[in-house]
Amino acid sequence: MISTMMDVPLSLNHLLERAGTIFGGNPIVSRLPDKSLRRHSYAQYHRRTRALASALQRLGLRKGERVATLCWNHHAHLEAYFGIPAAGGVMHTLNLRLSPDEIGWIAADAEDRFLIVDDILLPLYRQFAQAHAFERVIVFPFSGAPVPGEFDDYEALLAEADPDGFVYAPHAETDPTSMCYTSGTTGRPKGVVYSHRSTVLHTLVGCLGDIWDLKGSDVLLPVTPMFHANCWGMPYGAVMMGAKIVFPGPHLHPDDLLDLMQLEPPTMSLGVPTIWMGLIQTFEAAQATEPGRWKMPTGMRSLVGGSAVPESLIRAFARHGITLGQGWGMTETSPLATVSYPRAELKDAGEDEAFRRAAMAGSPVPLVDIRIRDDDGHEAPHDGRMPGEVQVRGPFITGSYHQVPVSGDKFTADGWLRTGDVATMDELAYLRITDRTKDLIKSGGEWISSVDLENALMAHPAIAEAAVIAIPDPKWSERPLACIVWKQGQAADAQSLGVHLLQHGFAKWQLPDRFEVIDAIPRTSTGKFWKLKLRERFPS
Amino acid sequence: MISTMMDVPLSLNHLLERAGTIFGGNPIVSRLPDKSLRRHSYAQYHRRTRALASALQRLGLRKGERVATLCWNHHAHLEAYFGIPAAGGVMHTLNLRLSPDEIGWIAADAEDRFLIVDDILLPLYRQFAQAHAFERVIVFPFSGAPVPGEFDDYEALLAEADPDGFVYAPHAETDPTSMCYTSGTTGRPKGVVYSHRSTVLHTLVGCLGDIWDLKGSDVLLPVTPMFHANCWGMPYGAVMMGAKIVFPGPHLHPDDLLDLMQLEPPTMSLGVPTIWMGLIQTFEAAQATEPGRWKMPTGMRSLVGGSAVPESLIRAFARHGITLGQGWGMTETSPLATVSYPRAELKDAGEDEAFRRAAMAGSPVPLVDIRIRDDDGHEAPHDGRMPGEVQVRGPFITGSYHQVPVSGDKFTADGWLRTGDVATMDELAYLRITDRTKDLIKSGGEWISSVDLENALMAHPAIAEAAVIAIPDPKWSERPLACIVWKQGQAADAQSLGVHLLQHGFAKWQLPDRFEVIDAIPRTSTGKFWKLKLRERFPS
Repeated sequence: MISTMMDVPLSLNHLLERAGTIFGGNPIVSRLPDKSLRRHSYAQYHRRTRALASALQRLGLRKGERVATLCWNHHAHLEAYFGIPAAGGVMHTLNLRLSPDEIGWIAADAEDRFLIVDDILLPLYRQFAQAHAFERVIVFPFSGAPVPGEFDDYEALLAEADPDGFVYAPHAETDPTSMCYTSGTTGRPKGVVYSHRSTVLHTLVGCLGDIWDLKGSDVLLPVTPMFHANCWGMPYGAVMMGAKIVFPGPHLHPDDLLDLMQLEPPTMSLGVPTIWMGLIQTFEAAQATEPGRWKMPTGMRSLVGGSAVPESLIRAFARHGITLGQGWGMTETSPLATVSYPRAELKDAGEDEAFRRAAMAGSPVPLVDIRIRDDDGHEAPHDGRMPGEVQVRGPFITGSYHQVPVSGDKFTADGWLRTGDVATMDELAYLRITDRTKDLIKSGGEWISSVDLENALMAHPAIAEAAVIAIPDPKWSERPLACIVWKQGQAADAQSLGVHLLQHGFAKWQLPDRFEVIDAIPRTSTGKFWKLKLRERFPS
Repeated sequence: MISTMMDVPLSLNHLLERAGTIFGGNPIVSRLPDKSLRRHSYAQYHRRTRALASALQRLGLRKGERVATLCWNHHAHLEAYFGIPAAGGVMHTLNLRLSPDEIGWIAADAEDRFLIVDDILLPLYRQFAQAHAFERVIVFPFSGAPVPGEFDDYEALLAEADPDGFVYAPHAETDPTSMCYTSGTTGRPKGVVYSHRSTVLHTLVGCLGDIWDLKGSDVLLPVTPMFHANCWGMPYGAVMMGAKIVFPGPHLHPDDLLDLMQLEPPTMSLGVPTIWMGLIQTFEAAQATEPGRWKMPTGMRSLVGGSAVPESLIRAFARHGITLGQGWGMTETSPLATVSYPRAELKDAGEDEAFRRAAMAGSPVPLVDIRIRDDDGHEAPHDGRMPGEVQVRGPFITGSYHQVPVSGDKFTADGWLRTGDVATMDELAYLRITDRTKDLIKSGGEWISSVDLENALMAHPAIAEAAVIAIPDPKWSERPLACIVWKQGQAADAQSLGVHLLQHGFAKWQLPDRFEVIDAIPRTSTGKFWKLKLRERFPS
């Protein structure tokens, strides 16, 4: 017997047409370099995106060819999200926080044919222009200034295009739509290539009530850069549901975000923990000096990810009526793999347990299989105690890297992704990330979790940030060293920090041997603690 | 360039394993024939379902073979939903409201190999047993009585099976999982065969916030029979999200449902309009005679479908704090095609407009394309006025029928399903079903919508139900005749009904020529008005 269902491929083009047909009146707002707001309707967005696709085809873009973007978060970047695949191309988001050398290397590795670049990022482009020859450089006049004559003008291309006559490039659902490079704290960045299928499935899963809970009535503020794992896939979700989007443009300073929240109060936002730490510190400092300057968007939910979210940060926002939700994932997982959300099983468990759970990575989302493997390759029990490597499998998980041979350190023989993260899983299938494999501290034959120590330290009232690394030790093999950043005007001594950690349930042998006070934790281009730099600074 | 994403097929087995691993503690409740409640945990459900799959394989079930069910709504039926596909089989739900002849014909057409049947439905089974020879008849001892010796005992099979050693039948995602027959008000019923792919996609779309908004914290009461378009797909959604389910068993009388709602207050339910009409009439009558007997589950949402939902019914439930949501679809569309939900564009439009919209079929759900075609095959404008035939396309829409050649009256040349429903679509892409193609009334060259007349009549305080049909007319070709069922102890004269319709915006020429008072509107096995029977009764 065979199924009688239609053979209709999953397609981003369906989501775009849907948005234009159903949600034509809903707004998309972008903050420009001069901080003014530009508004488009979804109907205009739909038409401009088809115009972009038509223009790219006229420029000779062929099936599967890469179009890079070097852009902040704004409506034209969203046009690229759908317009490049609509033309049959593959959107490749370049990370503007990388070094110019690295950007150039990545563009060459991806063999990007065209580039769409914000005019205000042309100085950055010129620093890597010699590393890779784009056939066309299309400049988006984000600032409103005239586009220099040697480049293509994005708006002129759209004005000359034929959105009504445009015909979508035919495609199979497994055809590629976009690519991102891993942030690569070790080794060269590697390309992950998403498809219509993986992106639509990821979007459907993400929008579910227990995951992002994204509805057409939401107002989405995406602070996560659109070059960071496709902005965690949220822009695709907003277009599918017809949600209003408020793009912050290049203005990511806490003052700017708080100003924007007054003008366009969001109901949903997303960003890395650093952003939210800065925001709450700025807000609470202003409450003392300038009360009434800002109001928090009470009722807002925010998805926080990219690195572990300390419970203290979740509690701090909860006091302002804002729910921080936590997810775990990576470029390789599209990126959504787990989410922590209020589970029915815990409705009577009390507030402390709720916060404790909220600070965990959460449970696997639909379509994602997760297993925890110990060093011997056995599946760890779901007891919340036995850690192992997190391995992942599913239709929006990468099975290889662009033009890199599949290797055993990245994929298991039975086809699961080896994430390099170490975690426990408990009886409710909550994942708790204890470390990156390479960040675990092995002391006297026992493992110490650097992440647990960091979270406990960041709950101390004097500490703004903390990162823990291993240093070699002749007796114990490795011992923890804690790098501390004080909150402004605050400090504490090592002994009181030790007492604080003991109160948080650590054993005496797990306490850091040393506390080093530093000005700032070095970060990777995507905002994660860059422990490699700390290990270089504190080799012993 | 090719995508690097894993090739992992969509699979119901993933949803079942997910439920067992993540939501093991959540409950599934079934009401037994004696009205007591039986509880299982999802962990038990997972184990029992694997046991069923293992038992079916031991009985020799091969890939793609049909296992029929003749069951009420309960946990064992849910075990069949996942256990039969897990074994590689195809679940075929038989509609126990059909005549025995028809059930037998359908079982033979589907070539069902095994049957799972509730013990309390054995008398029905015996009425069609000679029409089709099932190789095995597996009796679920729903009442608790011993299973007659000539049949297999469902519980005994599960007890002997090997859930731990069970291995899922390998499958492609397009392999079939279940089949339903259309209710067939005209002609022979036809089989629609769903796949892993179509079912998983339909489940993901259904659970979205703006569609069913089904979360793990929900308590689902499925009143819609599980043999009616897979209970609109909602059981799959509950298992995916880990929601508590409360199955009503055979007890669908309003008194029984109200009693059950006191014991296990639902947050989400689903059923046809008739169910909810009966419920509110019973509830409001009891408020007068026996106040305090029942409380309405305030805050509950209910998806109502299967036929049009009158605005008066939506308003009546809203007065008790219950939101009736409306969807439109059919067996051929899995069945979700459109849903009416509060749209961001209408948040300031006022209560009357909100209720007016809530009484429409709503807008297309993600992955479903809908177009309205006039008699000449042109696409009707989205102006809310020009009606045409609703045509549908998408990955969970049927493209053919089981062993029936594809014909032009059911599918267009470019592969869209012709639904036979007539509707308008407005600027917000709200579909308003005006009629079945064959129920439209053509009077003096102008169309009159029987559904519009029915809804307006059912808003009259004296009318319980109304159905409008066309009768031949020498001058106008056709004229409307209204069949009326009074509310208990109430009545009105034809003239006042005419005035009522004029007040609802009908033109004088659109009013029914006659009002016929009858005891009940005849219904099909799935609860829809059976107008064929009315046309037979009132040929002129």
